[in-house]
Amino acid sequence: MWGYKRFFKRTQLETSDYLKDDILLIRCSVGVVRSHTEGPKIYSIPVPPSNIGQHFGKLLESGKGIDVNFEVDGEIYAAHKLVLAVRSPVFRAQLFGPMKDQNTKCIKVEDMDAPVFKALLHFIYWDALPDMEEFFGLNSKWASTLMSQHLLAASDRYALERLRLLCEAKLCEEVAINTVATTLALAEQHQCFQLKAVCLKFIAQPENLKAVMQTDGFEYLRESCPFVITELLQYVARIGEHSVISCGHVNKALDGDMNGRRVKQRLH
Amino acid sequence: MWGYKRFFKRTQLETSDYLKDDILLIRCSVGVVRSHTEGPKIYSIPVPPSNIGQHFGKLLESGKGIDVNFEVDGEIYAAHKLVLAVRSPVFRAQLFGPMKDQNTKCIKVEDMDAPVFKALLHFIYWDALPDMEEFFGLNSKWASTLMSQHLLAASDRYALERLRLLCEAKLCEEVAINTVATTLALAEQHQCFQLKAVCLKFIAQPENLKAVMQTDGFEYLRESCPFVITELLQYVARIGEHSVISCGHVNKALDGDMNGRRVKQRLH
Repeated sequence: MWGYKRFFKRTQLETSDYLKDDILLIRCSVGVVRSHTEGPKIYSIPVPPSNIGQHFGKLLESGKGIDVNFEVDGEIYAAHKLVLAVRSPVFRAQLFGPMKDQNTKCIKVEDMDAPVFKALLHFIYWDALPDMEEFFGLNSKWASTLMSQHLLAASDRYALERLRLLCEAKLCEEVAINTVATTLALAEQHQCFQLKAVCLKFIAQPENLKAVMQTDGFEYLRESCPFVITELLQYVARIGEHSVISCGHVNKALDGDMNGRRVKQRLH
Repeated sequence: MWGYKRFFKRTQLETSDYLKDDILLIRCSVGVVRSHTEGPKIYSIPVPPSNIGQHFGKLLESGKGIDVNFEVDGEIYAAHKLVLAVRSPVFRAQLFGPMKDQNTKCIKVEDMDAPVFKALLHFIYWDALPDMEEFFGLNSKWASTLMSQHLLAASDRYALERLRLLCEAKLCEEVAINTVATTLALAEQHQCFQLKAVCLKFIAQPENLKAVMQTDGFEYLRESCPFVITELLQYVARIGEHSVISCGHVNKALDGDMNGRRVKQRLH
């Protein structure tokens, strides 16, 4: 009903029953007309997911057309300049920039373990993290976390943004007492703000704090990023405050009070 | 309750109240024990989707490092041998096989329109179909369907399996009276069984058949794939049979009978 042509004359309104004590109440019903409707699709053909990563992964495995070698910690890794340059701006500068390496027969990579470089190449070609267990024979969560930590540092060095986030996500998933302090130090050093926040929250939990403080990683954190310890203390103080409030006003029977006290004991 | 040790002696059972008129009713309660439980994850860091296609797409756009040119219908397209070879076994043979083209400065591509080759290159690098409207300025469904038809043929020629399925899915989505007969011919010629089935079903619908038969595409289909016409007739006969059964036994008021008759009229 498009009512714009339906007028009500003023005189007619003023003498009508609609006006009560000089008040006219208007009730509006608003309807929404959808200009675009779509029926259910009767036919559809499923499309498989992207496989471009597999295509380049197989190229790496085949070793065909290689034009550059890297020596990492005594191991030699062959690759394709074009692929490396497309994926990493750092490799691009190193291989095609004005200051490019002249000798691409064997470029030496310093300060990196061979398996980390291998995993880096895997990501560059496959566009996915390798399966740590299959790839390195690592079958403990600890070893997998250690590899992700190294790979995070390598991803930052070669400006591989998605690899960095994949490592962050993995480290976040694997966050644990014995490795979290090193992960926090790493997050701080490589500006991984999300991962840093996760680590701080995890360590500041009353049930984790004391145990984390007894790990070697915490000692390393204290030495390499002393200011992060202050941030951690702020987190702990906030949680302590929270639990004092909750035990004072809401529920004394719960372990809020105990948590609050435990946190204080640990930090003095 | 793991009851395998709880036996009931036969004599005891036979004299018990459980047995009534030589009948023993057994009620079993089966419980499922889940061996693996997982709590909700407190922390998680989101990882962006794969961007390897964008990396190679930008390489194509930049034109850096090109080492091969194609002349298609008077247009020149530059590309990278390595990328082409990785993505298409046909390009691999053409560029690196024992019978490889010696002159890669300019390889001539016959029997293909320039925009189709351009779209093919787009897929090879970006791993996605181009936006037909943006890419070619095509703004009608008909023009988009025509491009998908050509691209399907090109994907078969260069053995790009995923591109073929992307085209099939697009043609399936855009199935329409004026283009479906050509699509069916194409599906037949390039062994696209899913697409062929969709086209046959669509054409055989009583509300579509007559109109499709009046298109130029149907004439082309009749000439190029005469045996598909027989298959189509089988489809129609099956639908006709179905509607006769449904109008005879189930519901005379519905248009089953009318459909049945209309189909017969159209085919005699």
